[in-house]
Amino acid sequence: MSATDERRRVVTWQDPVATARAGLALSGLDYLNAVVGGALPPPPITALVGFTLETVEPGRAMMVLTPGEHHYNPLGAVHGGIAATLLDSVMGCAVHTTLPVGRGYTTVEIKINYLKAMTATTGAVRAEGKIVQVGRQIAMAEGRITDDAGRLYAAGTATCLVFDLPPSAAR
Amino acid sequence: MSATDERRRVVTWQDPVATARAGLALSGLDYLNAVVGGALPPPPITALVGFTLETVEPGRAMMVLTPGEHHYNPLGAVHGGIAATLLDSVMGCAVHTTLPVGRGYTTVEIKINYLKAMTATTGAVRAEGKIVQVGRQIAMAEGRITDDAGRLYAAGTATCLVFDLPPSAAR
Amino acid sequence: MSATDERRRVVTWQDPVATARAGLALSGLDYLNAVVGGALPPPPITALVGFTLETVEPGRAMMVLTPGEHHYNPLGAVHGGIAATLLDSVMGCAVHTTLPVGRGYTTVEIKINYLKAMTATTGAVRAEGKIVQVGRQIAMAEGRITDDAGRLYAAGTATCLVFDLPPSAAR
Amino acid sequence: MSATDERRRVVTWQDPVATARAGLALSGLDYLNAVVGGALPPPPITALVGFTLETVEPGRAMMVLTPGEHHYNPLGAVHGGIAATLLDSVMGCAVHTTLPVGRGYTTVEIKINYLKAMTATTGAVRAEGKIVQVGRQIAMAEGRITDDAGRLYAAGTATCLVFDLPPSAAR
Repeated sequence: MSATDERRRVVTWQDPVATARAGLALSGLDYLNAVVGGALPPPPITALVGFTLETVEPGRAMMVLTPGEHHYNPLGAVHGGIAATLLDSVMGCAVHTTLPVGRGYTTVEIKINYLKAMTATTGAVRAEGKIVQVGRQIAMAEGRITDDAGRLYAAGTATCLVFDLPPSAAR
Repeated sequence: MSATDERRRVVTWQDPVATARAGLALSGLDYLNAVVGGALPPPPITALVGFTLETVEPGRAMMVLTPGEHHYNPLGAVHGGIAATLLDSVMGCAVHTTLPVGRGYTTVEIKINYLKAMTATTGAVRAEGKIVQVGRQIAMAEGRITDDAGRLYAAGTATCLVFDLPPSAAR
Repeated sequence: MSATDERRRVVTWQDPVATARAGLALSGLDYLNAVVGGALPPPPITALVGFTLETVEPGRAMMVLTPGEHHYNPLGAVHGGIAATLLDSVMGCAVHTTLPVGRGYTTVEIKINYLKAMTATTGAVRAEGKIVQVGRQIAMAEGRITDDAGRLYAAGTATCLVFDLPPSAAR
Repeated sequence: MSATDERRRVVTWQDPVATARAGLALSGLDYLNAVVGGALPPPPITALVGFTLETVEPGRAMMVLTPGEHHYNPLGAVHGGIAATLLDSVMGCAVHTTLPVGRGYTTVEIKINYLKAMTATTGAVRAEGKIVQVGRQIAMAEGRITDDAGRLYAAGTATCLVFDLPPSAAR
């Protein structure tokens, strides 16, 4: 293996726990909008995987990612975990947009169908997450990844548990 | 935000398409064993996310990952996409171990339950993938992520399409 | 337990294999329309569970069911299997509407979220299935169950394998 | 269609709400054992679909069903909803066996893979449900349907919400 075979990527991020703590004083929508606008740093996972939260609105979140060789699996295409990560994110954020200060969520399960392989020549893809229903304890969301030409790469659903945060959490 | 807040991680990998092509001349088990033994480089996704294929045997694959802050989501814990990536990998590899030269697979869907959050203090976790059934066209696998103390972090299933590779693929 | 406690339901149906065989000479849409219009008898499962195929169009199918006490689980509400059966049906039929003569399908997996319990006082509910994508080998569909007031009871997805029927099948 | 084409099945059951109410005074295991032993009548769904709760033990439930023509779908085999109903039942019951008096559960979602078609000549099949994990709010179970020869027909997972019943529920 020659030296020229080696590829390299530098990932940087900022203290995620501080950011998460700051988020506890905000509604989900305000928190995510602070990330979109740059007032709060994005979480490390977005730097690592290389995606960006583009827009949020009540019940809906959109992220963008440009697939690259660093995402490749042993079969020579983008690893399915990348689509899963992106969809998990937008579906969770879609639920998060509906939560007031003092309410939190955690994702219980995701289900992802891979419909078309992404490669380093795919170009930017967008993931859209939308709530299906947000109840008192359980929320369901759905998500899709498409490219600019409307081609569908993956589609999924998520189930979240929604709950009151402990009173001390926001301090 | 002071300079000391910034964290940094350098990821390096090797040409994944060359490796995938080399794999076409091998059975799934031989290919994955070549990656375990270092004769073939691991795919980029393993460098990016930071996991290692530890062992494979017919119908079974095991990977190890040490969760870190670089995997964190906006809620202050490891992003669900990391568990999904790991389980997608071991379940797909478990199916791959059963395929002779000339047969390929692609993952159609995964379903992941998140049972316990991983954090930067969790330590190493292992993902085990096992086949449930490999048919002529469809394969099903299941996977679990546990730590050394046997605590369960995530569990899932995958459905794969298995097929004959085009005759030109192995050249 | 007095005699008056006993409830009774009589289910009747017609030879399903003859009907399935007749279907092999028709496109999916023509076959399902023949069932909607009464030219072909509905399959036994619809008599047993008590649902009706109401409309089909390319990529879409709609069924109606009135939940009753005979559907009850040990918890005193309609068993989740009823929603699963209904959604499995409309999602499979939505895929079936897209298949020409000589093509068949089988459902590989379904995933159902239960969002609201159905009871004997719910009244008629409708299940709508729609295709997400129909490829050469794999199709994905989604479905929802709602009542006349638009309340959502269940939502799901299905993955189907689509294939050429053996040439002898249509004889 | 001649008169002899018509098939007929009579289904009888007993007041399910009375039984469900009786169950509120029992632990899940005692309630289900009362159904196994005949002290409480089975729920209507079991009469309608034709399955029997055979054994329960902590974290595990087993049911038996003999597939028949009355379960057939429009493709000439047992409808997938039957396997889904059976697996939903055994997975829910497996969770139920772990709950003391005063705790209840509801199934949030199920995911079923269909691995082999059941027909009227399959003979008796058994569905086994086992818990994967029962937490304070969320439980996960898995299930499989096999025949006497060990052939696998379907496999799935379920997610349940577990909770305290309202104090008035047991009265």
